[in-house]
Amino acid sequence: MPRAATPPLVLPALAPEEREPLQRQLYRHLRAAILDGRVGVGSRLPGSRSLAAHLGVSRNTVIAALDQLVAEGYVESRRGSGTTVAVPPVSLSAAAPVATADGAGQRAISRQTRRLVSSEVPVSRGLLLAFAPGMPALDAFPSRDWSRILARRWRHPAPGLLGGHDAAGYPPLRSAIAEYLGRARGVRCSADQVVVVAGSQQGLDLTARVLLDPGDQAMVEDPGYTGLRGVLRACGAVPVPVPVDDTGFDPGLAENLWPTARLACVTPSHQFPSGATMPADRRLALIAWAARKDGWIVEDDYDSDFRYAGRPLAALQGLDGGHRTIYCGTFSKSMFPALRLGWLVVPPDLLPAFLTMRRLADVAPSTVTQAAMADFMDEGLFTAHLRRMRALYAERRQALLASAARHLPGLAEVTAGEAGTHAIAWLPAGWEDLAVAVAAQSQGLVPGALGLYRLQPGRPGLILGYGNMPAETIDPAIRALRQVLAHWSR
Amino acid sequence: MPRAATPPLVLPALAPEEREPLQRQLYRHLRAAILDGRVGVGSRLPGSRSLAAHLGVSRNTVIAALDQLVAEGYVESRRGSGTTVAVPPVSLSAAAPVATADGAGQRAISRQTRRLVSSEVPVSRGLLLAFAPGMPALDAFPSRDWSRILARRWRHPAPGLLGGHDAAGYPPLRSAIAEYLGRARGVRCSADQVVVVAGSQQGLDLTARVLLDPGDQAMVEDPGYTGLRGVLRACGAVPVPVPVDDTGFDPGLAENLWPTARLACVTPSHQFPSGATMPADRRLALIAWAARKDGWIVEDDYDSDFRYAGRPLAALQGLDGGHRTIYCGTFSKSMFPALRLGWLVVPPDLLPAFLTMRRLADVAPSTVTQAAMADFMDEGLFTAHLRRMRALYAERRQALLASAARHLPGLAEVTAGEAGTHAIAWLPAGWEDLAVAVAAQSQGLVPGALGLYRLQPGRPGLILGYGNMPAETIDPAIRALRQVLAHWSR
Repeated sequence: MPRAATPPLVLPALAPEEREPLQRQLYRHLRAAILDGRVGVGSRLPGSRSLAAHLGVSRNTVIAALDQLVAEGYVESRRGSGTTVAVPPVSLSAAAPVATADGAGQRAISRQTRRLVSSEVPVSRGLLLAFAPGMPALDAFPSRDWSRILARRWRHPAPGLLGGHDAAGYPPLRSAIAEYLGRARGVRCSADQVVVVAGSQQGLDLTARVLLDPGDQAMVEDPGYTGLRGVLRACGAVPVPVPVDDTGFDPGLAENLWPTARLACVTPSHQFPSGATMPADRRLALIAWAARKDGWIVEDDYDSDFRYAGRPLAALQGLDGGHRTIYCGTFSKSMFPALRLGWLVVPPDLLPAFLTMRRLADVAPSTVTQAAMADFMDEGLFTAHLRRMRALYAERRQALLASAARHLPGLAEVTAGEAGTHAIAWLPAGWEDLAVAVAAQSQGLVPGALGLYRLQPGRPGLILGYGNMPAETIDPAIRALRQVLAHWSR
Repeated sequence: MPRAATPPLVLPALAPEEREPLQRQLYRHLRAAILDGRVGVGSRLPGSRSLAAHLGVSRNTVIAALDQLVAEGYVESRRGSGTTVAVPPVSLSAAAPVATADGAGQRAISRQTRRLVSSEVPVSRGLLLAFAPGMPALDAFPSRDWSRILARRWRHPAPGLLGGHDAAGYPPLRSAIAEYLGRARGVRCSADQVVVVAGSQQGLDLTARVLLDPGDQAMVEDPGYTGLRGVLRACGAVPVPVPVDDTGFDPGLAENLWPTARLACVTPSHQFPSGATMPADRRLALIAWAARKDGWIVEDDYDSDFRYAGRPLAALQGLDGGHRTIYCGTFSKSMFPALRLGWLVVPPDLLPAFLTMRRLADVAPSTVTQAAMADFMDEGLFTAHLRRMRALYAERRQALLASAARHLPGLAEVTAGEAGTHAIAWLPAGWEDLAVAVAAQSQGLVPGALGLYRLQPGRPGLILGYGNMPAETIDPAIRALRQVLAHWSR
């Protein structure tokens, strides 16, 4: 037979002025009293009538709170014996961690993740600041068209658009991407080979997870994209550096350095970040290497939509016939980064593996963005936007090179490649580019530091993104950069 | 000195009627001639004038094609010596795989991925068919409101909405989610602890990658969600089964079975798929277990928005204070599955690790869906939609139970729990539920088979999703199911 609750239960007063309903407040107070041991297992709670009178609330309020406690199993209600506590108190103090700012290594997380956190490079958040790398012209995005397309598409959506789960992506978008890549980039693929992803970062992550086992080596360009090295490490693989030169990744050097590696990750169109273009002989040598080794090439074609001399270079994938190349691209530069849409082009026999991994990673891309993007392409808006942006970026690039030629001689040598939306300001040997980049922030400049992208020491430099800089802002920004560099050179 | 091209180069005729520009066609033909060895390294190509005459095209067309070959490094152009081939032929046949339908294991992909592909369970695609599990009422989604909000939000987007890269998610959405979870689910968290993800699948994937090393054990409910087991295996961990009973996951049994495991993945509100609710004593025991083991609880609260008896049970996370619980949820059921938005609630000291992994996985969620979702919540449309859906699903659930009571006695025992959008039709012992589910497909019924969700043998059953079934379609579907079962029982 249950004991009566002694000493009598003391509950905090309820607060009718709070947004939280009274029954919810009472439920919380009673639950707390049970869990901290103020009422022990088997104790009988006061009756609903007396609780209501004591607290000055309606009996219905009390009954609702007690019902909730019964439903969750904290108390039991038996006819004739009232409501009794069903669970023992619990000490939560053992479970409470000491919260620390950098505490991520202190509790049991995986060793791989711990290494990733400690090796993460600082990320520049300079959205509207000068020289932010990788940022397209946000002010030139045709948002009225985009808004109209979103609205039209979602006013009367087909059930498939709401419920669909196509891991490879929305079929009309896959077709539009395949058509665009064939026409503009010389990629050889059918729409079936296109896997829509949430930007090239997810493309690289899926590729690493599909192709690599823990301990496998993966050759990466040095300097190169840090997000790639991160996903390689995240799946336990080992990124091994291949220094790039004026024509990018050198397959012969790579094979000498890392004879057992079977994966090469490259940016042949416009090496990131140096801007070099890989010529045909190296492309062919890389394809031959992959065939010899039964290996793979990951081609990250991250910004080749914009080219200012000649027509765009055909993708390596097209040269290979897509047999040993996983081709990766993104709409982040051609549309806007926060869209989070991109693609992989995958050899047909690898599709089952990629789709399995894609389903596990996040099931499928959202149809909200995919359907709008497909319409944007089908209506010709994408091609028109690219054409306008190419002219705009050519102008900004020209302004940057002209201003740098005026203001930076003796301080930095600026090269811009023939594509993309960034230039490199090569600094004098021995300078610490990361320290220079940090110093530049005080002037509202957020260039990237080449050193952050290197695995091995090399020539210092700053990455100057010009995509999001109106032409008239470029000369003042370059002059501000001169001040920073001049100060540094003293 | 370069040799002249002998024998003379024979090129296919150009096709002016094709969409591909003539210069691009010529570029392709010349490149093919170089790569297949018809013109060797050092050979001189015919002059642009004679090529133009020979092919019947303008000289500008030829020059453009040659310029492209120069730019890509296939040929070199020197004043006085004409245009010569710069690369040797390449045999691509070695690189060509034999494409096979089930070829995913034949080339060098990772061992982990190969296992995943071979163990993948068949996925039902029955979007509009009867009993599809996990599908909400697509016909009742307020798409006009959704369309209006998308349009308004994207007509004049702030630059931050286009360029923003917040790995944890769009801040107003994180606030709206934290507020909703506190009010409706008893989750204790600040907006800072909310990480917006692309649905609960990505939430589980990130959690597994952050917490687990290869070889680590992770306790999972049996039967339980296959997508969870998949992500555990994908990161090299070992899912170990804990049989559930009428009140779900049993922490005492779990600790006896797997004394060294330090991660427990549970669905306390509404066990998937059985529908059981975990009572308070087990919740407290699980929290105490996690504290003792320095372990973690992953709480997947996948469908607790809809509850038909009493008010929603508070989340386990709130009871734990969020110290050792990673709480995971999704808008797939409350909005629509193809939206691909959900959340994690993460203990503060684990945030750096989760955000590092999130950035590597896909940088950040799209602002297109996030901003619209935030507006949808802030305007009260989400709460209103949930209220309408709760009434709708209660009606559908009642129709299902009533129809099953009429038509299925002796064939199946139907239980629906008090929450969610699916019921279980428990089949007679010894029946193969997967075979029954396949047989049902011939009647347009796509129930889930409980056996697909089990790691160890157990009572057979069918998962009957009723969320997307208008009430008037339920009785005919149950009668069709009776036919299938009656046929099976003969």
